[in-house]
Amino acid sequence: MTGIRRLVLDVLKPHHPSIVEFSQTLSVIDGVYGVNLSLYEVDQQTETVKITIEGDDLDYEAIKDSIENLGAVIHSVDEIAAGKRLVEEVETLQER
Amino acid sequence: MTGIRRLVLDVLKPHHPSIVEFSQTLSVIDGVYGVNLSLYEVDQQTETVKITIEGDDLDYEAIKDSIENLGAVIHSVDEIAAGKRLVEEVETLQER
Amino acid sequence: MTGIRRLVLDVLKPHHPSIVEFSQTLSVIDGVYGVNLSLYEVDQQTETVKITIEGDDLDYEAIKDSIENLGAVIHSVDEIAAGKRLVEEVETLQER
Amino acid sequence: MTGIRRLVLDVLKPHHPSIVEFSQTLSVIDGVYGVNLSLYEVDQQTETVKITIEGDDLDYEAIKDSIENLGAVIHSVDEIAAGKRLVEEVETLQER
Amino acid sequence: MTGIRRLVLDVLKPHHPSIVEFSQTLSVIDGVYGVNLSLYEVDQQTETVKITIEGDDLDYEAIKDSIENLGAVIHSVDEIAAGKRLVEEVETLQER
Amino acid sequence: MTGIRRLVLDVLKPHHPSIVEFSQTLSVIDGVYGVNLSLYEVDQQTETVKITIEGDDLDYEAIKDSIENLGAVIHSVDEIAAGKRLVEEVETLQER
Amino acid sequence: MTGIRRLVLDVLKPHHPSIVEFSQTLSVIDGVYGVNLSLYEVDQQTETVKITIEGDDLDYEAIKDSIENLGAVIHSVDEIAAGKRLVEEVETLQER
Repeated sequence: MTGIRRLVLDVLKPHHPSIVEFSQTLSVIDGVYGVNLSLYEVDQQTETVKITIEGDDLDYEAIKDSIENLGAVIHSVDEIAAGKRLVEEVETLQER
Repeated sequence: MTGIRRLVLDVLKPHHPSIVEFSQTLSVIDGVYGVNLSLYEVDQQTETVKITIEGDDLDYEAIKDSIENLGAVIHSVDEIAAGKRLVEEVETLQER
Repeated sequence: MTGIRRLVLDVLKPHHPSIVEFSQTLSVIDGVYGVNLSLYEVDQQTETVKITIEGDDLDYEAIKDSIENLGAVIHSVDEIAAGKRLVEEVETLQER
Repeated sequence: MTGIRRLVLDVLKPHHPSIVEFSQTLSVIDGVYGVNLSLYEVDQQTETVKITIEGDDLDYEAIKDSIENLGAVIHSVDEIAAGKRLVEEVETLQER
Repeated sequence: MTGIRRLVLDVLKPHHPSIVEFSQTLSVIDGVYGVNLSLYEVDQQTETVKITIEGDDLDYEAIKDSIENLGAVIHSVDEIAAGKRLVEEVETLQER
Repeated sequence: MTGIRRLVLDVLKPHHPSIVEFSQTLSVIDGVYGVNLSLYEVDQQTETVKITIEGDDLDYEAIKDSIENLGAVIHSVDEIAAGKRLVEEVETLQER
Repeated sequence: MTGIRRLVLDVLKPHHPSIVEFSQTLSVIDGVYGVNLSLYEVDQQTETVKITIEGDDLDYEAIKDSIENLGAVIHSVDEIAAGKRLVEEVETLQER
């Protein structure tokens, strides 16, 4: 059991399908409680989207496959939380 | 079932009908709990408005039709949340 | 039924009547739970005031009439929330 | 009944009586739950103080008289809230 | 009865006694719930300290005497709250 | 018993294994409630990752060994909390 | 009884023992609920660490001795809270 509770993904996608369609495909994957898609930047052919997915025991490979099947690509996994509880990143003294 | 819980829309509209009238039309669409319309920028003929809509199983097409019937156009869907729970966008380390 | 829950108004007024008198007139309009008047800017003859009104099924026309009867004018409706619940404007990724 | 719940006042006062004495005079006025006096700026003969007063059905004239009897003058009423509930000023999209 | 609930003092003190000793003297004065001493600035012979005292019916004169008996002096009373409830200073529109 | 409740680590790792795999290895170590891995910076061969681990009586040596077994190295322990309760770092007056 | 509830210390230490070892020594001192050690700055031979200690009736001398026995020195006590309740430092109007 992996126990992934949150994934924050930086994703490059074509304009179609829209983020409305993305949200509907991703929100019904097993273990997903909810998804949030936010627009970073829009270019002529593509757009960059930040996808936050929360759930219980998320299946990263299934999520990645879904995103790729919609014609998009994950640029980076910017944050991941796993375990019995959702742990937030803590801002440290040196970062202030 | 789509399960859309929040939509944040960037909308261009003529000065009339006003955002007061928009709020009354949009707030009675099926599945809508509430709407918030905030003024971004006012030009001579048009104004740019940010529309936040929250609900349970929102119907994007019905909302889009309503907005267009009022003479306005959706520039972009800036944020969408869907699923069993409302997931907020998480600010990542690289964005600070 | 309109179901307006919050109005944020940008209002230009003469120095008299004062915002103390405005608050007493506006807070007793039907459907109003409470009002907040905050001073933006003071000029020689006039002052600009931000009026936040919250309630249940607010009557925009009655509020507008009250403000005009006090000798002031609404420059713009900067925010409106309507529906079964009060929805807040959500700050999007592109605005940060 | 006026129903004033909060007053934020910009007040110019001589150094004496001190804000300690002001707080004791103002906090016992009818309808006052509590007062907060914060120092803005100190000059040779005078000081500018921000006075926040919260209560239920505050009597603006009685408060003004008390302040003037202590030798001070209200420069402006910067914020007032009135009604059945205390409504906070809402930061709008254009102000960010 | 004065009903002072919070005092924020700007205090100049010699290095000795230390703020550890100050905290022990001030925290046992009648009516004091707790004290917080924070270092502003350290100079060769002196240091500037911000002292926050919260309680119920604080005795300003007794607190002032205690501070002076420890060899320090109150530069200014930066904030005072009094009354039946602790009222916080409210940030106004013009200050943002 | 050490009683470590939180560790914030600055870690340099090769691109593979990914932070998804790291999260799964670290979250099953004894005493770990949850982990958060956030991407700081990506270089050609390596990436810098901030790892926040929360738990009850965390075993620093076991965590360090796990990280090194995955081919990574701890640059620094940026924050540690230990004891009967989780104490947060407090921002001081001089840091503002 | 001193009743110290929080201490924030600016400490200079050699690289060894590590802050992991510091946390274990300090968290078991009498009256300590928990400690937080955060890295400020790393130099060739030394590092500067901010130590936040919370508890009930903390013994400053015992804590100071422990820190010195580990080869470190307290540069300054940046904040101290004492009394029946933990009082936080309040940001004043002039500091904004």
